Amino acid sequence: MPIGPLPPRDMDPLGWGEPSRRTPLPPHAKRWLHREIGLPDRRPVPADPPPAPNPPASRIPAEARAALAEHAEVSEDPVTLLRHAGGKSYLDLTRRRRGESDLPDAVVIPPDHVAVLAILGVCADHDIAVVPFGGGTSVVGGVAPLRGPHAAVIALDLRRIADLTHVDPESLTITAGAGMRGPELERALAPYGLTLGHYPQSWEYATLGGYAATRSAGQASTGYGRFDDMVVSVQLATPKGTLVAGRAPASSTGPDLRGLILGSEGVFGVITELTLRVRPIPEATYDEGWSFRTFEAGLTALRRLVQAGLAPDITRLSDPDETRATLALSGNGKTRILRGLLSARGRSGGCLLILGWEGERTMVRDRRAAATAILRAADGARLGSAVGEAWRRGRFETAYLRDELLDAGAMVETLETATAWADVPGLYDAVRTALLTDLRTGDARPLLMGHVSHIYPTGASLYFTAVASRDTGDPLGQWIRAKSRATEVIAAARAVISHHHAVGTDHLPWITEEIGPLGVRILRAIKNELDPDGILNPGKLIPAEEKPGHSE
Amino acid sequence: MPIGPLPPRDMDPLGWGEPSRRTPLPPHAKRWLHREIGLPDRRPVPADPPPAPNPPASRIPAEARAALAEHAEVSEDPVTLLRHAGGKSYLDLTRRRRGESDLPDAVVIPPDHVAVLAILGVCADHDIAVVPFGGGTSVVGGVAPLRGPHAAVIALDLRRIADLTHVDPESLTITAGAGMRGPELERALAPYGLTLGHYPQSWEYATLGGYAATRSAGQASTGYGRFDDMVVSVQLATPKGTLVAGRAPASSTGPDLRGLILGSEGVFGVITELTLRVRPIPEATYDEGWSFRTFEAGLTALRRLVQAGLAPDITRLSDPDETRATLALSGNGKTRILRGLLSARGRSGGCLLILGWEGERTMVRDRRAAATAILRAADGARLGSAVGEAWRRGRFETAYLRDELLDAGAMVETLETATAWADVPGLYDAVRTALLTDLRTGDARPLLMGHVSHIYPTGASLYFTAVASRDTGDPLGQWIRAKSRATEVIAAARAVISHHHAVGTDHLPWITEEIGPLGVRILRAIKNELDPDGILNPGKLIPAEEKPGHSE
Repeated sequence: MPIGPLPPRDMDPLGWGEPSRRTPLPPHAKRWLHREIGLPDRRPVPADPPPAPNPPASRIPAEARAALAEHAEVSEDPVTLLRHAGGKSYLDLTRRRRGESDLPDAVVIPPDHVAVLAILGVCADHDIAVVPFGGGTSVVGGVAPLRGPHAAVIALDLRRIADLTHVDPESLTITAGAGMRGPELERALAPYGLTLGHYPQSWEYATLGGYAATRSAGQASTGYGRFDDMVVSVQLATPKGTLVAGRAPASSTGPDLRGLILGSEGVFGVITELTLRVRPIPEATYDEGWSFRTFEAGLTALRRLVQAGLAPDITRLSDPDETRATLALSGNGKTRILRGLLSARGRSGGCLLILGWEGERTMVRDRRAAATAILRAADGARLGSAVGEAWRRGRFETAYLRDELLDAGAMVETLETATAWADVPGLYDAVRTALLTDLRTGDARPLLMGHVSHIYPTGASLYFTAVASRDTGDPLGQWIRAKSRATEVIAAARAVISHHHAVGTDHLPWITEEIGPLGVRILRAIKNELDPDGILNPGKLIPAEEKPGHSE
Repeated sequence: MPIGPLPPRDMDPLGWGEPSRRTPLPPHAKRWLHREIGLPDRRPVPADPPPAPNPPASRIPAEARAALAEHAEVSEDPVTLLRHAGGKSYLDLTRRRRGESDLPDAVVIPPDHVAVLAILGVCADHDIAVVPFGGGTSVVGGVAPLRGPHAAVIALDLRRIADLTHVDPESLTITAGAGMRGPELERALAPYGLTLGHYPQSWEYATLGGYAATRSAGQASTGYGRFDDMVVSVQLATPKGTLVAGRAPASSTGPDLRGLILGSEGVFGVITELTLRVRPIPEATYDEGWSFRTFEAGLTALRRLVQAGLAPDITRLSDPDETRATLALSGNGKTRILRGLLSARGRSGGCLLILGWEGERTMVRDRRAAATAILRAADGARLGSAVGEAWRRGRFETAYLRDELLDAGAMVETLETATAWADVPGLYDAVRTALLTDLRTGDARPLLMGHVSHIYPTGASLYFTAVASRDTGDPLGQWIRAKSRATEVIAAARAVISHHHAVGTDHLPWITEEIGPLGVRILRAIKNELDPDGILNPGKLIPAEEKPGHSE
């Protein structure tokens, strides 16, 4: 994929990325949202700009500050602090738009792994909590600047540990600093003819370390694997020293300790370097759109594909409401083309399926041919490649749509899970019911869009985007209540609490439901071994002990 | 694959499987081994039968024995004890043939998971070590009945926890007891049209729990994945209760705790149940042989295949010495056919490559076509399908060859590792040199056969089989010294200490080289949390603490 100019490191603290890339909602889209969910159909008077951040005097003692500054750049500039005041969830953005965000006491930017070790030592000595900070794109509170029981908190920004340090073109592995972002890595790999192929929605901003810490999945993960699958080895800086886990290509020398670092969300240490599997830039790429009359028919088709070993590299099946919203919210031209394609095939609405194929040219052709037979047998109607290509072109722009919706007075947030194929339809219905019930405000119904974007031989992810008229009196509680209800439904169904967003603060109340009390005790035992002072990312991932000094 | 009669549960304690399945070495093979490594060319007078096991009075107090018997079948029968006196390494067999094996104090056979929990409680109360025992096929000392610091030791045999308890044909997952063996599972799945597709050399005897505890890889793992990749969830009975890790199909709810149980070799708990990904029995299977002039040319071909996404499901590339030995040791007819095929292609010796393809018929055809082009471009000569089919037919019989060689006065043992593609040739040379130097006795050279049987995009496994004239004065030391030297070479090269044999007792001195001191401390912290009395499989996987009461 050609890499354009790199986006700036810092995002708009009140929204996604660069405000200049936002595209205003077209008038027909606003009218549709007015009818659909009762949003005001004219742009509301913009809210007052949020109060300028006015951080309280830093809680970091002068001696500690001086010690930190020996090893790293230390900033207490209010704008820098605001940019590190949490992630990009609806709750985060709403709090920042209302000037209600907590700020870290300082932002610390180390140059290398050794400096990270030193900083952890300083922070342990001075009772300062440390929040590892990559792209700041968490949507579950993973980078909230919580002090926990500590005297102060810093955001430890990895942006300077961001070099491609080794390329092994024979073994197809590379080594890079954890602060490197997706486009930076792809740009550095392009001269070698290589690609990582990991494209989460946050790709333009998220870092390799963040992918690892949260067990990221990307748009092409059906073909390229989840980020976990790409990690050959990973280096962790902890208060007790350095841990390097993993050697190419596979081992049975005890449990796989990579698996403890992946998904550790900064509570065991700071991921500073990764060795990753890369691939040749694909010789051929082919995107296409298909239409199914029902979500169930589309699910059946995807299941048959992946279980036959014919999964595409990219898969995205929209449910009827997401398909309807795509038609309604796209630019007029795009919508007209898509409606035309559907109607030429005797369809309207239904469920849109985007597939992407990548790889060696003849194998892309052969896989597509075998897959096409399965898709047609499942009553799929092919819409052609233009629909798929349009999706690929616009795939990193949709993040900006949220900011437009927030400005227009909406509550907008996402929720995701995954379960076994046999349980997907039931879970889909149950989560929809929970969200639709809870997000209704007065007469206004919410818009709830669902899709499947990651398929596996044993099951699939489910991703929901909820858009509702914002409850101006309680915009945070409106989502928190709905999300809680939906997560209880997910836990009761024994589906996963998160498929690729991780735990952070927001899923903390439910992790025990998924991994059990003994699982939590294992995480705590590892934490106590590596971070006995508990300075690393307090309040995330590991629930507080119910009884202090637990014992049998 | 059609499943014949199930092999008996218990193996010959002095060799592999059932002695009746052994085929004597043909005279031409004996003559060849005489010339090659100086083995006596007539069958030596059989050694005296080993002294009948005469176990000392059990160290288990009557009260504990009664408590165990409340939950499980308890046996102190000498033959039963001997069958649980370790695994199947050269060291194990040699010790047992010499009557030098330690025996467990009892063999305990629980009926279910709840009984396992109860037994762990009894053993913790009475200071009895517990060695979880599946098929008993460990070749690294993983099931040696070590007491460690405890008063007694039991082998906990999982053979009665061996049912297929659930089949989900839609999600393609099954749930089974950990004591189930490979053929038992394949036979239970066949009526559903399903297969696990995991075929380690030990397949006829090894259990699902053993695969999990050791991170097994099978002959078809290039296509079907390592056993790790098949585990949807796993249940562990620990002294602190039950841990169930994993939910279909993928999660980002914290670190993947499955990865702690896989490869835990019984030191954290007893694996009692697994939910596994299964597949439809492949529509088509195609095996074939190829020949390469050099090992390097074969390696290049395999690397190009797997990096192009065209890896076969089964791959086995023999080096020149393994190819030569295959020609020399096979039956005369087979050897003549293979020599004829080679000579018709203007080749002799070189390196034999076996490939197996499985799956949907047209995809097997298309993948093979694309792969054939790559193999030919790498100077491969195709030998046809008969060579591949012969390998598949005989693949579980080769384990018996070792017993014949032992009887003929040989030392015979294997060693395996894996590394990145760029490092495979150098590691191959270094390990060969170490083993050839150390196994030379007087004028007699060893025979050292090498092959690659598992390929990954980033690297490959290396597997060596050493056959030497046995040092009758020090048959154990002869191998221990050679293996140590080779393992030091492997550690220095930063290759993996074990690719699929696990750690056990034999690799314990080197695990710290691979996972680092902090890695060992993490394993110890988990162990202390789950098994604070240290009763589970002492002396395996986790090195003893160097300084008691370690602290910073």
